[in-house]
Amino acid sequence: MDDHGVPPAEGDERAASTDFVQSLARGLTVIRAFDARRPRQTLSDVARHTGLTRATARRFLHTLVELGYVDTADSVFWLTPRVLDLGYSYLSSLPLTDLAQPHLEKLSSRLGESSSVAVLDGADIVYVGRVQVRRIMTIGITIGTRFPAYATSMGRVLLAALPAEDLDAYLAATDLRALTPHGLADESALRAELSRVVDRGWCVVDQELEPGLRSVAAPVHDRHGEVGAALNISTHAARYSPDQLHDELVPELLATARALSADLAIVHR
Amino acid sequence: MDDHGVPPAEGDERAASTDFVQSLARGLTVIRAFDARRPRQTLSDVARHTGLTRATARRFLHTLVELGYVDTADSVFWLTPRVLDLGYSYLSSLPLTDLAQPHLEKLSSRLGESSSVAVLDGADIVYVGRVQVRRIMTIGITIGTRFPAYATSMGRVLLAALPAEDLDAYLAATDLRALTPHGLADESALRAELSRVVDRGWCVVDQELEPGLRSVAAPVHDRHGEVGAALNISTHAARYSPDQLHDELVPELLATARALSADLAIVHR
Repeated sequence: MDDHGVPPAEGDERAASTDFVQSLARGLTVIRAFDARRPRQTLSDVARHTGLTRATARRFLHTLVELGYVDTADSVFWLTPRVLDLGYSYLSSLPLTDLAQPHLEKLSSRLGESSSVAVLDGADIVYVGRVQVRRIMTIGITIGTRFPAYATSMGRVLLAALPAEDLDAYLAATDLRALTPHGLADESALRAELSRVVDRGWCVVDQELEPGLRSVAAPVHDRHGEVGAALNISTHAARYSPDQLHDELVPELLATARALSADLAIVHR
Repeated sequence: MDDHGVPPAEGDERAASTDFVQSLARGLTVIRAFDARRPRQTLSDVARHTGLTRATARRFLHTLVELGYVDTADSVFWLTPRVLDLGYSYLSSLPLTDLAQPHLEKLSSRLGESSSVAVLDGADIVYVGRVQVRRIMTIGITIGTRFPAYATSMGRVLLAALPAEDLDAYLAATDLRALTPHGLADESALRAELSRVVDRGWCVVDQELEPGLRSVAAPVHDRHGEVGAALNISTHAARYSPDQLHDELVPELLATARALSADLAIVHR
């Protein structure tokens, strides 16, 4: 797994580069310090979690309050809805999200199952589109949710499309761990599975990310014919046997992935 | 409408304050410069849209590339999925989103209609939870989508709960404009409507945001008994007459809003 968002420590050697704006890096680290485990923090909490001094953390929090991204009362700080504008500027700049939405809606409404679109970012997949029909997983999935690529059907579709040297680098850097008793955690087994994905043109992951969750994914091609995203259908294992998945869901999945790829091919960026 | 995210111009007097980190403000402005109309930009584009000099814009883009929030090729820049981590850390810090999701799913699955939760931020509502069953609006709605509060059912529920002086300030600062031929764009008519919302405990907006869209909203109370959010059901005008909306959807809406408020009351932040 790559290590996202390591806070640049104070005195970091990057500060020496006149091209690197350390204040921006630190400010983004302060925003990321707030999460589900610590939604409301004091100045001391923020300093501890970011590795900044109290004086520095105070300046950044003060700035974020003045800009409207953070609110404060009684010496406690929390993020405001304005932070969503930062992620939204990404989403709204991504033709994929817009184009995928009606396809996901049709697919989910026809099958009564949730569907998603994700892209690869480092060692993770990131959800960029989703229609949830019912909740299966214990973890809620929204736009922006990340999972390790190797453990998911969409991740394996995206890994299967990587150039050989990129896949080698990914495998060298990634600690494969089975997340459930069904999990595949062996490099040669994963490589064999990725070859099958290339041959078949789709991927099934059966209860490897979470018990009870079975999902199928297929590649979405961009206008250059390259795999730019993956589309999946996820369902409860009790609702579809592996055979039913193959016979009933895979044809729908492939048809939708092709339709979305066709849409992407005619959009000029 | 308030004017979110005004870029601090170079030489802004705030630079004089040692407590205001101008570099952070500028960096966030660069992130926000990318949107659906301009997802891919050159250095010159970014400089023009942010009001920064080319030299300054280059330093910020370089920093964002190094941190992984921006990618670049052939002198063009675009945001990467990592930006979602910034907004997503907000979402995951908001118990409302987590708590609302199962309620929205049950409601939407029972009625076959989309449902949402939004909060007020400045003059806008911001979606913080949504289950979409079918797409009605021409604009796709995701977490983070904003609409002017006065033109939406959730916005009117939230405006109706404002203290008198806050509502006065909102109305003084807001340019009420009818967005459709059905739109209400008169201050005294809006005030009368907000009073009705308080009396009835719910709000209907009939094709004022977009023709064909009819929605009902109710307040969600926080653990202090204050209106912290609004819940809505949106449907196509052809599917429910105003009478059916009242008889069939409003009781479900109110029951779900009460259940979500009860959940919020027992969550200690």
